[in-house]
This record gives sequence, C-alpha cells and structure tokens, in this order.
Amino acid sequence: MSRFFLSHIDRLAGYTPGEQPRDGGFIKLNTNENPYPPSPRVAEAIAGALGDRLRLYPDPVGTAFRRAAASLHGVDPGMILAGNGSDDLLTILTRAFVGPGDAVAYPTPSYILYRTLAEIQGARPVEIPFEADWTLDPSRFARPGVRLALVANPNSPSGTIIPPDRLAALAGTLDCPLVVDEAYVNFADSDAVGLVAALPNVIVLRTLSKGYSLAGLRLGYLIARPEIVEGLIKVKDSYNCDTLSLVGGAAALEDRDHLARTSSMVRATRARLASAMRGRGYRVPESQANFVWCTGGPPARQAYEALKGRGILVRLMCYPGQADGLRITVGTDEEVDQLLAALRAIG
Amino acid sequence: MSRFFLSHIDRLAGYTPGEQPRDGGFIKLNTNENPYPPSPRVAEAIAGALGDRLRLYPDPVGTAFRRAAASLHGVDPGMILAGNGSDDLLTILTRAFVGPGDAVAYPTPSYILYRTLAEIQGARPVEIPFEADWTLDPSRFARPGVRLALVANPNSPSGTIIPPDRLAALAGTLDCPLVVDEAYVNFADSDAVGLVAALPNVIVLRTLSKGYSLAGLRLGYLIARPEIVEGLIKVKDSYNCDTLSLVGGAAALEDRDHLARTSSMVRATRARLASAMRGRGYRVPESQANFVWCTGGPPARQAYEALKGRGILVRLMCYPGQADGLRITVGTDEEVDQLLAALRAIG
Repeated sequence: MSRFFLSHIDRLAGYTPGEQPRDGGFIKLNTNENPYPPSPRVAEAIAGALGDRLRLYPDPVGTAFRRAAASLHGVDPGMILAGNGSDDLLTILTRAFVGPGDAVAYPTPSYILYRTLAEIQGARPVEIPFEADWTLDPSRFARPGVRLALVANPNSPSGTIIPPDRLAALAGTLDCPLVVDEAYVNFADSDAVGLVAALPNVIVLRTLSKGYSLAGLRLGYLIARPEIVEGLIKVKDSYNCDTLSLVGGAAALEDRDHLARTSSMVRATRARLASAMRGRGYRVPESQANFVWCTGGPPARQAYEALKGRGILVRLMCYPGQADGLRITVGTDEEVDQLLAALRAIG
Repeated sequence: MSRFFLSHIDRLAGYTPGEQPRDGGFIKLNTNENPYPPSPRVAEAIAGALGDRLRLYPDPVGTAFRRAAASLHGVDPGMILAGNGSDDLLTILTRAFVGPGDAVAYPTPSYILYRTLAEIQGARPVEIPFEADWTLDPSRFARPGVRLALVANPNSPSGTIIPPDRLAALAGTLDCPLVVDEAYVNFADSDAVGLVAALPNVIVLRTLSKGYSLAGLRLGYLIARPEIVEGLIKVKDSYNCDTLSLVGGAAALEDRDHLARTSSMVRATRARLASAMRGRGYRVPESQANFVWCTGGPPARQAYEALKGRGILVRLMCYPGQADGLRITVGTDEEVDQLLAALRAIG
C-alpha cells in the first residue's frame, strides 16, 4: 500500500464480500440473494425515469421514497432516512456516533462488517458472544466507552431472532444508540419498528436487497427519531441515493403482494432445507431469515469445497474459537433439490 | 439534535446543496447540471439490465466499468476506482488519509464540501486563498500536518483552471496525496490524467454528473496508482456502485461522439453568456467549466432574488471576506436568452 494511508487503515484487513463469480454457471446460495425476481413494478418505474431526468441531481433526501417507507411503517416521513444500501447507513451511523478510541459493541458471531466499520473509524470493537441458545445477555453490552451497539436481527449466520421485548430490555441498559439491523426481517415473524416510538435510542435498519430482491439496486433505509435523522443527514453524502433506485425502491415497497408471495415461498423452502440438513447430521437453529446455519455435521470446509466443485456456492463461515459452519441461502425449490442431491452424492 | 452524536458532528453546519425544486417550473442554472440529455446508449444499457439481474449484488469493483474508464484514459484497470458519485470518493479519500487533528488543504473560494468533509472527520481545514489572477502559490500548501490536498480544477465558482505543469509543481511540494477534482474537465482544454504516471501522489477525480449529463445516476471514478486504489477499496462500502449506474456509466464513457457534441455546444453558449455578463458590468473570469462566475457588477443578491421571482434559479455564492457573486450554469441557448432577457427587464 501507499505510505500516505492512515496507519490503522494500512493495518486493516478489510471486509471480504462473498464470492461473486462474474462468469455465471453457479447455483449461488452464498450471499443471501433472493431467488425470485423483484416486483415487475420496479422495472416499470425505473424505465419511466430514464432519459432526460438523469441529467438532474436526485432529491437529496428522496422525499417520495421517504413517503412510501413512512406509509408502509405508519411513521412520519421525517423518521426515514434512505441510504445507498444499508451498508451506507451503517457507515453514516458509525461516523456520526463513534470517535477514535470509542467502543462499538455487537454480538458474535454476526455480520463481519461491524468490526471493519469500527476499525476504519479507529474505534474499538467489543464483541459480545451469543449465549448457547442464541439469546443475548443485555448486561454484557453496557461497557464503558460504548457509543454504538449493533444487533443484526434476524442474525447472520445463525438466522435466529431476538424478540422485541428483549431488544427493548437491551436498549434500556444502553446509554447509546442501539441499531437493530433488520436486513432479513422480511422472512421473520416479528420486527422492532414498534420500539422506535417508545425508546429514543432505537434505530431500525432495513434493506431492499433481500426481501425485495434488489441487491443490485443498492437501497436501504432507517427508521429513527427525527432528531437522529436530522443529524445523520449532515453526515451523509448530499446525493447518496440515485434517482433510479429511489423510484424503483418506492415501487417495490408499494407492491406488498409481491413481497408476501415471494417471502412465503422462501419460508416454505427454508423449512424443507433446514429439515433436510438436520437429517444429514447438522445442527440447524430455527431460521427467521433466508438462509440456514449448519454446524456440527460432516466437516464444513470439505462440504463447501465439494459443492463448489459441483457448481454450487454456499458460504463457509469461520469465526475464531468456533467450529466452521455452512451458511446456505434458501434458493428456489429446484436449486435446493440440486444442493441436496449434490450433498447425497458427496456422501 | 440527539445527544448521542459526536460533539464535532453536533456543531457541524453541514453542507447545503443547491436548491432542487421538486415541483419543476424553474429554469435551473444553479447546480451545474448539463442542459443536454445523456447519450441514448445509457438508457438502452440500463433497460437491458433491469429485471432478474437486480436480484444479485453488483460487481464490488465494477470490472466492466473499470475497463471502459481505463480504455478511455489509456491506463491499467487497476488504476480506476468507481464511486457513488465523486462525493463518495471524496469521502473515502478523507477517511483513508486524514485522522482527527490532521489538516486538509484546499484553495478558497472553491467547492464548499471540502470543508464539510474535513470537519466530519474531525480534521482541520486549511484554506489557501487563490491569488488575484486565480493561480495558486504552491509554497502556501506545504504546511505542517497536511495529510490531503484537494484542488477543484476547473475550479468552482471561478471556472478557472490550473495548467498541468503548475499542478505538477504543487504535487512536488507536498508529502501527501494531491487530489485533482476534475468534475468540470469535460468542458476544459487540459486535464491532469497524464500526471498520475509520473507523480505517485496525484489522484485525479472524475464524475459523470456534468459532462455526461448523469447527475441523477451518481457515478464518479478516480485514477490513481494501483497501490492507492487497493487501499481505498478497503475503506469503501463493499457494493458502493449499483448495477444500473455501472452499466449506464460504461455506455456513457463509450459514446465519445455524444460527449464531444454536447460539450462543444456548452462551450459555445458559455462564450456568449460570459460576454453578455461582462456587458452587464460583471467581472467574469475565462471559464473552462459549464458555468460562469460573475462578481463586481449589479448587486448579486438582488439579481439572484429578482431572477428567482421570474422562475430562473442561479447560485448566489457568499464566501467570507469576499463580495457575493453569481455562479450561472450554462444552459441551452434558449435558457440563456431567457436569463439575459430577465436581467435586462430587471434593469
């Protein structure tokens, strides 16, 4: 690297996203993309915004998208902030709340990016192990110097969920914002949006990448008190969301039937996949997400390699101090059948 | 604001982008948007990428776009980094090179965002006044603690340009990266890309917002040594550019005829606008951008207000210690005629 970088950036390993083979030919069950296409209304809305309108800057706060999200959740539009994917919002949150030497607390094993974001900011990652049953002990979060707590819920890689009353208890022990990262919530039975009205430090994060099948569009949003949204607007890039994603995203949120239909198909296939993987000797926690987490069965690394050799990508996850596991995205029924056949053939 | 924000974020005024009226009905000559539509190939390329492909994450480094930009500039694709607008790249650069208490040096008056970015990072803005003839004295930049220097070239609001040999001299005095922000270079007679091969600290920044008429798409890129690009990739969000902007952006770069045609129309209208504003008593430096900077004539604030009252938006720029000025974007010939007629009517 060039010598001009800050020393903590120089040392940074950096976040490695899941494999994205450009040449196709793989069954991709490794990065939690939705197996079903987005609502057809998305393409219609985007096609209608092409042409001369692209000349102009987008609305800096995405007013129309904000209204669509606010209407979906029954909150005021001033409580919505759109981002260039929820990663953009996580970056904004870290920059707004966490200084060098401050602490960022989050459970482990969870979304690996949280550590990277803390490190880029020169902050101290504080990793709180999940209990054996994938619950969290709130008393372990309230450490000195914690300026931001992040909980992926449903969690990755486990797929498990903390119910709203337990999140409320956690928020109550904290003197900092608690970000509930609901990337996978469209496949779950509960969510934390209702907590924002009662608890001034709860921020709920959403993405259109998973439930809405729009990972390629880069659009997420958060729901928080207006006084938090106003401060975050000062930190975000002025035009962080482009015209096409704002228009397409609003169309996606409005097509509630499409979400209900595709989410229900994913849940049905998830149950079948979890059951089959248990049948193969893996421990699989009850998943509320669009993937299942498989540990304790046939060696994960060998299974990952053998599947890759057969054109099926799953995610091998290796967390320090824990056995390796396979995080398998719920594909179509046909894709899951091919996965299961491959596992039987591998033996 | 919420008490959870870092104190320097709490104090931050924040960057205010130019007015973006949502209800239309204005002649917009205030935010340097291109008056001509983008290449028709952009809409074609985007339309071809709609649908099922949006389900999948984009290529994290935008390989195809990188190749298109590398081919345009005759450099290696490893010297290109795409960003969600050049603002995203400016944010990444600041986070990678500048720590709290470090200094960021840039000329003044220039792009107001540079100060905001330094302040968000907890860094110290060092503002170097332009000389009276809009040149820069390189010896004034090399101050203790400067970890990043930013020069908008052509500059906003002046429209003036520093020639490559003077930039090379400036880069030679610095022990930090010099970012040459070429947002407006598609309307200029020279550029600094040739310096990157010879000088390890020069980074050239480009955007598709102005010359390519794609402000709504949010796409920019930088050209730098591969060891700089590699480090910046660790700091950027994994998927900072969406599938549609990468595809549309590559199509725009490849339509060189469209750029040449529209840029030449803007330059012709610019000459006419500058001459007319000089005729109205304003000082107008020779512009190499798609706007003209008007000072010293009839009071700027009154002219701005009167034009707004007639449905014409120009940008009133107020820099501390300097007389207010009008920065007027070069519109179509018809828009410029309407502006000049309105100015005559105002008297």
